[in-house]
Amino acid sequence: FILSAANASAGRLDGKMREKTLTMDTLNPQVKAVEYAVRGPIVLKAGEIERYLEEGGTKPFSEVIKANIGDAHAMGQQPITFLRQVVALCTFPELMDSPSFPEDAKWRARRILQGCGGHSLGSYSASPGVECIRKDIAAYIEQRDEGVPSDWENIYLTTGASDGIMTILRLLVSGKDSSRTGVMIPIPQYPLYSAAISEMDAVQVNYYLDEDNCWALDINELHRAYQAAKQHCQPRVICIINPGNPTGQVQSKKCIEEVLHFAYEENLFVMSDEVYQDNVYAPDCQFHSFKKVLYEMGPEYFSSVELVSFHSTSKGYTGECGFRGGYMEVINMDPEVKAQLVKLLSVRLCPPLAGQAAMDVIVNPPQPEEHTFKQFHQEKSSVLGALAEKAKLTEQILNSVPGIKCNPVQGSMYAFPRIFIPPKAVEEAKALGMQPDMLYCLRLLEETGICVVPGSGFGQKDRTYHFRMTILPSIEKLNVLLGKVRDFHISFLKEYSGLEWDEI
Amino acid sequence: FILSAANASAGRLDGKMREKTLTMDTLNPQVKAVEYAVRGPIVLKAGEIERYLEEGGTKPFSEVIKANIGDAHAMGQQPITFLRQVVALCTFPELMDSPSFPEDAKWRARRILQGCGGHSLGSYSASPGVECIRKDIAAYIEQRDEGVPSDWENIYLTTGASDGIMTILRLLVSGKDSSRTGVMIPIPQYPLYSAAISEMDAVQVNYYLDEDNCWALDINELHRAYQAAKQHCQPRVICIINPGNPTGQVQSKKCIEEVLHFAYEENLFVMSDEVYQDNVYAPDCQFHSFKKVLYEMGPEYFSSVELVSFHSTSKGYTGECGFRGGYMEVINMDPEVKAQLVKLLSVRLCPPLAGQAAMDVIVNPPQPEEHTFKQFHQEKSSVLGALAEKAKLTEQILNSVPGIKCNPVQGSMYAFPRIFIPPKAVEEAKALGMQPDMLYCLRLLEETGICVVPGSGFGQKDRTYHFRMTILPSIEKLNVLLGKVRDFHISFLKEYSGLEWDEI
Repeated sequence: FILSAANASAGRLDGKMREKTLTMDTLNPQVKAVEYAVRGPIVLKAGEIERYLEEGGTKPFSEVIKANIGDAHAMGQQPITFLRQVVALCTFPELMDSPSFPEDAKWRARRILQGCGGHSLGSYSASPGVECIRKDIAAYIEQRDEGVPSDWENIYLTTGASDGIMTILRLLVSGKDSSRTGVMIPIPQYPLYSAAISEMDAVQVNYYLDEDNCWALDINELHRAYQAAKQHCQPRVICIINPGNPTGQVQSKKCIEEVLHFAYEENLFVMSDEVYQDNVYAPDCQFHSFKKVLYEMGPEYFSSVELVSFHSTSKGYTGECGFRGGYMEVINMDPEVKAQLVKLLSVRLCPPLAGQAAMDVIVNPPQPEEHTFKQFHQEKSSVLGALAEKAKLTEQILNSVPGIKCNPVQGSMYAFPRIFIPPKAVEEAKALGMQPDMLYCLRLLEETGICVVPGSGFGQKDRTYHFRMTILPSIEKLNVLLGKVRDFHISFLKEYSGLEWDEI
Repeated sequence: FILSAANASAGRLDGKMREKTLTMDTLNPQVKAVEYAVRGPIVLKAGEIERYLEEGGTKPFSEVIKANIGDAHAMGQQPITFLRQVVALCTFPELMDSPSFPEDAKWRARRILQGCGGHSLGSYSASPGVECIRKDIAAYIEQRDEGVPSDWENIYLTTGASDGIMTILRLLVSGKDSSRTGVMIPIPQYPLYSAAISEMDAVQVNYYLDEDNCWALDINELHRAYQAAKQHCQPRVICIINPGNPTGQVQSKKCIEEVLHFAYEENLFVMSDEVYQDNVYAPDCQFHSFKKVLYEMGPEYFSSVELVSFHSTSKGYTGECGFRGGYMEVINMDPEVKAQLVKLLSVRLCPPLAGQAAMDVIVNPPQPEEHTFKQFHQEKSSVLGALAEKAKLTEQILNSVPGIKCNPVQGSMYAFPRIFIPPKAVEEAKALGMQPDMLYCLRLLEETGICVVPGSGFGQKDRTYHFRMTILPSIEKLNVLLGKVRDFHISFLKEYSGLEWDEI
């Protein structure tokens, strides 16, 4: 044994010290390299404060508001009744006899159970998912994309979108690769991407979104990033998040065409994270799926660009994060590689069946002629209407604060405002060995109980600072929250600038 | 672009051929190396035959019987009513008002929902799982182990046991490791282990179970395997499956002590796969948890050996595979490493909440003083009683066949009989480029509709052949199945030995 005083934690029978097998020195260094800000140090701190309050401790606030993660139900959003009815019927089929469950839900549940082994949600499904659910998803995509064909055998259910993204990256990235694989990601990005890239030891290739242009993706920046990366790795994948997370922008059709043309020319595999496809609020914006745009570019493109699109039960108007449901549609994948994908999926057996059932309701919701349509439609509109209102409110209040500048929240569930941090605060943060926006967010948390995530966790241009907050709290709570952010920011500026209010 | 005629599949606008980005040549070679027999080629073939029959095709049989995978519900086992009631209540809390749901289920569901964000199964939980469920699990383990302390902060909910096993291996194995990490696994093994080892590019270190001694683990064989492996890698982990999969043995307390002593001496991290802990049938066998045995070895061991134990909702008497529920208990892990584990888990957000709820029912079932106890107990005993009967039946019938030898199925859900394959058949298989037992299982499938997995998918000593079959079909069906296996085996022997029945 190599003995190290720091790690030796237990005496051995023979008098020698026994060292732990798994220590920070022997831990897989790729795991060490992983960062995931959305549940990072600031969230751990928030948890501590919460426990402190619960145990009777006092703070200048009475509760912690967690605006760090896109978890709608935790913020009080109610589940869509119809979705839960279908999943409950699948879970406990004795309810099929209950008159309080609508027939529209019962036939869907019966159909899902018909597709399950032993007609039970307790069976494994085929690794790509329950066949009839895959078919429903393909039909939904065809309808969404106004007739662009979708083959159900290209649909793979996943354990949330994260699982699908990791699986596809696993195919593309080899840790042993000598000509290392470059994965192009937007900056700011959702940190699942950087975490997966660290874990798999790929090379992260940053392309910067244009903050001055509503976080739009600029094709020239893509070219720059690609050419620069080619010097030290082989860029093989481009990841796009549309609508954007954490940036909230909705990509124009023209922009998507440019990205796809670029991917075509440079032989890049396209991963299109479209989990916020139902979360578009700006009246002048519209969701365009990468697949539909690819189709409209003509058969030359539609028959060749390798594209995977990801969707999820966790976002949209359902917000069913806990179900860990999702799917991916895989286009133009080499058939032999597809067989390898299925093999890889099969090692994990299958995605959770309740999540598959929830996904089925999302792609196969009540239709106007069904009795349940009215309530379903009301619930859906109410959630999406409130989100649109909150998106607007967030932008407006944040932009009313001196030293904060927030692009319109066109879609998704987040605002990513730019914050001015005075040089003195930047210095103080550096002295503490932390990012300036981490200092800012920790102070915000400690003084107001509001938990948001520093921009440094998502990536940002040097010497710019941001934070990500969700727009999910109720309008009442959001108003309070934004007011507190404003007051905090002004006092923060005063403290570090030595200025009075009317000078700011 | 590097052009390859075989891969170039689409013409480019500029007349050059456009190559796919992701081909068998560029695929991550570690993915290529993965094998997973339980859902491998034979199961794909079974699916093909099933579709052929559905479409009106004819075969010498009317249905495919899938004895390849431990999927109890698919084989007709009924869910435990109480478990489903609790999960349905959590899914659709309006049912709390329904008089047809028992109070015992309601209070459990209320308690689980109290632990969920927004009191909804649709929220993310903390990455290690819902706190009150972690506490219930710790209490359950303490009771199971007759007072050995369990700390709820050592409990991590998982997405089935497979997910937990992969996560722990990820901490231990670095793909870039120059002194490559050796992972000791039993042979025969459950192929999740070999698949994970391939995917992570670790070194598989085989220790052979002793077929002549009821598949017992022989400590001398462990030493042999360890010393041999040390020549070319650094063995750091030992995996044990108890009760055994695919081998069905239940380890004695003495054997477990020896393994733990060995791990202590050689500084190995212990991964104990105990998902079949409730599946013990042989009257002279008893499940001993690795943790309890470690405790009884004294504080010197209990305070130092790093041990993770895995459990699941998928097996036992519940068989809830589709819920993807499970947990792991982590003992003696370095606190800093534990923080890294939590970080890694947080990237995947959380295990599915319905699976967490199902796990909670398993560790917190109806108690004798509760109204639901009687029905629950009847259902549980009925499942476990039938499994014990099927274990015995399988062993007896298989051992009545000349050329088949089956160890007692002491526990788990599988028989792993040794089959004699005549030299002529071995030659024929080699000529076809397949393993002899793959040829055997393919023939069995094609002639009888019975789907079992070749022993080569689990590993076996050279020139021995086996298959794994589940004991899960109903007794009636199992009788038919075993009769067909017998008839097939005899005719297979005849065909390849040129012998008559009475000579065999």
